[in-house]
Amino acid sequence: MRNIKINIEYDGAQYYGWQRQKGHQSIQQTLEEKIKLITKENVTVIGSGRTDTGVHAINQIAHFKMIGDMSEENLLHALNCVLPDDIVIKQLEEVHEAFHARFDVKSKKYIYQIWNGPSNTALHRRHCWYIRKTLALDLMREAALFIKGTHDFSAFCGAGSKVKDYIRTVFSVCIDEDNQGRIIITITADGFLRHMVRNVVGTLVEVGKGKISPEQFKIILDSRDRTKAGMTAPAHGLFLAEVTY
Amino acid sequence: MRNIKINIEYDGAQYYGWQRQKGHQSIQQTLEEKIKLITKENVTVIGSGRTDTGVHAINQIAHFKMIGDMSEENLLHALNCVLPDDIVIKQLEEVHEAFHARFDVKSKKYIYQIWNGPSNTALHRRHCWYIRKTLALDLMREAALFIKGTHDFSAFCGAGSKVKDYIRTVFSVCIDEDNQGRIIITITADGFLRHMVRNVVGTLVEVGKGKISPEQFKIILDSRDRTKAGMTAPAHGLFLAEVTY
Repeated sequence: MRNIKINIEYDGAQYYGWQRQKGHQSIQQTLEEKIKLITKENVTVIGSGRTDTGVHAINQIAHFKMIGDMSEENLLHALNCVLPDDIVIKQLEEVHEAFHARFDVKSKKYIYQIWNGPSNTALHRRHCWYIRKTLALDLMREAALFIKGTHDFSAFCGAGSKVKDYIRTVFSVCIDEDNQGRIIITITADGFLRHMVRNVVGTLVEVGKGKISPEQFKIILDSRDRTKAGMTAPAHGLFLAEVTY
Repeated sequence: MRNIKINIEYDGAQYYGWQRQKGHQSIQQTLEEKIKLITKENVTVIGSGRTDTGVHAINQIAHFKMIGDMSEENLLHALNCVLPDDIVIKQLEEVHEAFHARFDVKSKKYIYQIWNGPSNTALHRRHCWYIRKTLALDLMREAALFIKGTHDFSAFCGAGSKVKDYIRTVFSVCIDEDNQGRIIITITADGFLRHMVRNVVGTLVEVGKGKISPEQFKIILDSRDRTKAGMTAPAHGLFLAEVTY
């Protein structure tokens, strides 16, 4: 069997997340259907991890096993021809049979985009969370520093998660403004709990609004109590940006 | 009468251009309807110029006259509350009664976005023209220099234009790649003919593909013959970026 690694960009707006599920169109299912259409093989596409309903990816990594001998270049082109225009395979390569897109992950980077100002944006509205009240970025940066390092992130884990280990290591967290006026929050970690980025961002925004202090943010993190954290930031501002192996 | 100047951002995908017309929803008409809803006054919104069906604006400027004494801040907020989410008024201010959004224009800047590579983009597809074949940017830049300065742009004027004077002055033209992989063509001029940017871009892309040389591009410009130029680049890659007075 050949082991094929793919790098996928997608706009999650029209999908019920990455994971295949009954009765709803997912990114995984769409990829599997189109790979079958081209290769005539039933494949399982294994992603680096799930993304929620409405979440986007700039570089999601996945792998699947196949038998056919179509060249990488032809397979890539054929798949992009049949995929809907909100899913694009950016790279496709045959890799060692042992490569596993989920088990081998070393780190992941997520980006969250916020549009902050007296009016929303017409052009970027699909990919930014709009916050009208001016956010104090200095306070948000101060609070964000507390998640750096290894912590129990229970306080920022969404309900319904079935993991047993809530400990994750955050390698870096940045809060920047880009040249188009967006606030970009970038978090890199060895792994993420369900809704972790969105819950961290929702709570950082409370800090930015002055509703809670950076110190209170730290107390929430340390409490391991989900009910203490802020709202879950909406899905449409979140992007899986990078997966490293 | 108060003279109100507005700066508008819009995603043109769902509109038949700026200009009010029977049977089709335009940006101008939408603004006039919403201003009436808030002020109860029948106003005419005069833009700096028309944008075609599907063309976007980052900073379109317009003005309208009104009687009511609502504050600038309240008017701005009320209008943005009732406008559809693909039209946003970024700024609103009362200006001198003599200000005219079209007659007083000194220069305009348009941006055209191209996505160039073996696969299209899922995330930016609504705002970029996708070109699969690798474009030679150095040749495109060489050709683009020929439009700098004052020229008769008949060769790049769309059919149906009713202007008498085809002479325009291009102040600057830049072809850059941004950090997300887009090719950004920026043209600033004292004015633009119908479809001028899209026809220039369509012809520059022919140069980038090696189908015509930079010298042939100059011959096309000098010919003043529309039938010699390349295709009209699609509307969805074009943005009115700036208007100066």
